[in-house]
Amino acid sequence: MIELYAAPTPNSVKICIMLEEVQLPYKIFKLDFTKGEHYQPEFLKINPNAKVPAIVDRDNLLNVFESGAILLYLAEKSGKLLPKNSESRAEVYQWLFLEASGFGPTAAQIFHFGQLAPEKIPYAIERYQQEALRLLAVIDQQLTHRDYLAGEYSIADIATFPIVQGFAYAGLPIGDFANVGRWCAQLQQRSTVGRGSYILFQEPAVV
Amino acid sequence: MIELYAAPTPNSVKICIMLEEVQLPYKIFKLDFTKGEHYQPEFLKINPNAKVPAIVDRDNLLNVFESGAILLYLAEKSGKLLPKNSESRAEVYQWLFLEASGFGPTAAQIFHFGQLAPEKIPYAIERYQQEALRLLAVIDQQLTHRDYLAGEYSIADIATFPIVQGFAYAGLPIGDFANVGRWCAQLQQRSTVGRGSYILFQEPAVV
Repeated sequence: MIELYAAPTPNSVKICIMLEEVQLPYKIFKLDFTKGEHYQPEFLKINPNAKVPAIVDRDNLLNVFESGAILLYLAEKSGKLLPKNSESRAEVYQWLFLEASGFGPTAAQIFHFGQLAPEKIPYAIERYQQEALRLLAVIDQQLTHRDYLAGEYSIADIATFPIVQGFAYAGLPIGDFANVGRWCAQLQQRSTVGRGSYILFQEPAVV
Repeated sequence: MIELYAAPTPNSVKICIMLEEVQLPYKIFKLDFTKGEHYQPEFLKINPNAKVPAIVDRDNLLNVFESGAILLYLAEKSGKLLPKNSESRAEVYQWLFLEASGFGPTAAQIFHFGQLAPEKIPYAIERYQQEALRLLAVIDQQLTHRDYLAGEYSIADIATFPIVQGFAYAGLPIGDFANVGRWCAQLQQRSTVGRGSYILFQEPAVV
C-alpha cells in the first residue's frame, strides 16, 4: 500500500497517473496548503522540503519525496515503465531530468509570476513563457520521429505530460506544436492517464 | 572512453567530479557559448536542449544529456556511488531530484537576475536568494545527523556540492549553515572533488 500525500497540482498528478499505470494499491491524503498542512511536523518527517507529492510505502515503511524520485522508485518496485538495459534507461533518465530541471521549474515560475506575485513584472512573465515555448520546441522536435519521448512509453512521458497540460492551462499556444499535440492526445486516450489526471480534482479524492 | 561536452559551470563540474570518482577514462570538449557552439548542429545531435553538460560514451556510442541523467548513467556503468538496494537508491534519488528541481534552477535564476538580466528587478533577486537559503536550511537539517545527504557518499552529494559552491560565489551566507559547511569541507578534502572542481577552469582543460 502506497500512501500518496498530494494536492491538485501537476507534480502530484504525475504520481496518480503512475500509480494507475502500475496498479499498485494506494490511498491519497490531500494536503491543504491554505491551512499550512505541508508545514506540519508529521509531514515534514516525510518531506523536509515541505512539498507535495511525497509517498510512504507501507510495505517497507519507506518515505520518498520529489516526483522524479517517486516515479523512479515506483518503476523499479513494479518493474514497469523503465527499460532494463542501461542505454534505454539512460534515454529515459535524460528526458525525466529535463522535465525536473526545465519543464517543472518553468511551470512553477509561470504560475508564480502570472498568478501569485504581488506585482506584475513583465520581464519575468515573458522570460518564463519564452522558456516554456523553447522547451516545447525541444520535445516537439524529439516527437517528430518517436511516439514517446524516449521511444517507448515511460516515466519520462508521465513526468512531462501534466506539466505540458499546465502550460496549456496557462494559455501557452500548445497547438503550435503538432507533435506535442499528437503525443498529448495519445496519452489522454489511456484510461490510466485520464483517471490519474482527474482524481485529485474530485472532492473528496476517492481511489 | 567518455567524451564530456562542458563549460566552466556548476552543472559541468558535477560530471568532472563524477568521472574523477569512478575513474573512467574521459576527454573534455569545452564549448564556447560566446561563439554559440552549443547551437551547432553537431552538438544539437548530442543535446537537442543545447546545454552542457552532455556526454558521448564511445564504448557504446550513447549520448546522454542532463547532469542528473549523466550521473545516474555513470553510476550504473561503474557500479559506484549509487546503492544497490531499492530503499537506499530511493533515498539517493530524492536528494538528486531536489538538486535537479530546486538547487540547480534556483542557482540559474540567481545568476540570471544578478548578472545577466538587462534590468535589476529587486523582487526576483530577493525571491531566488530566499529560495536558496530555504533549500540550504533543508539540507543543513538533513546533515545534522548524517555525513552525506543520503547517508553514504553518493551522486546526490556530487550533484549538490557544485551548486552550493555557486551559492557561496554569489555571496549567499553559506557560513550560517554549520552542517552544510562541514559537509563542503569533507567533500573538498577528496582529491577527486578537488580535481573535478578545477579542471574546467584551466586553459586548456587537461585530463
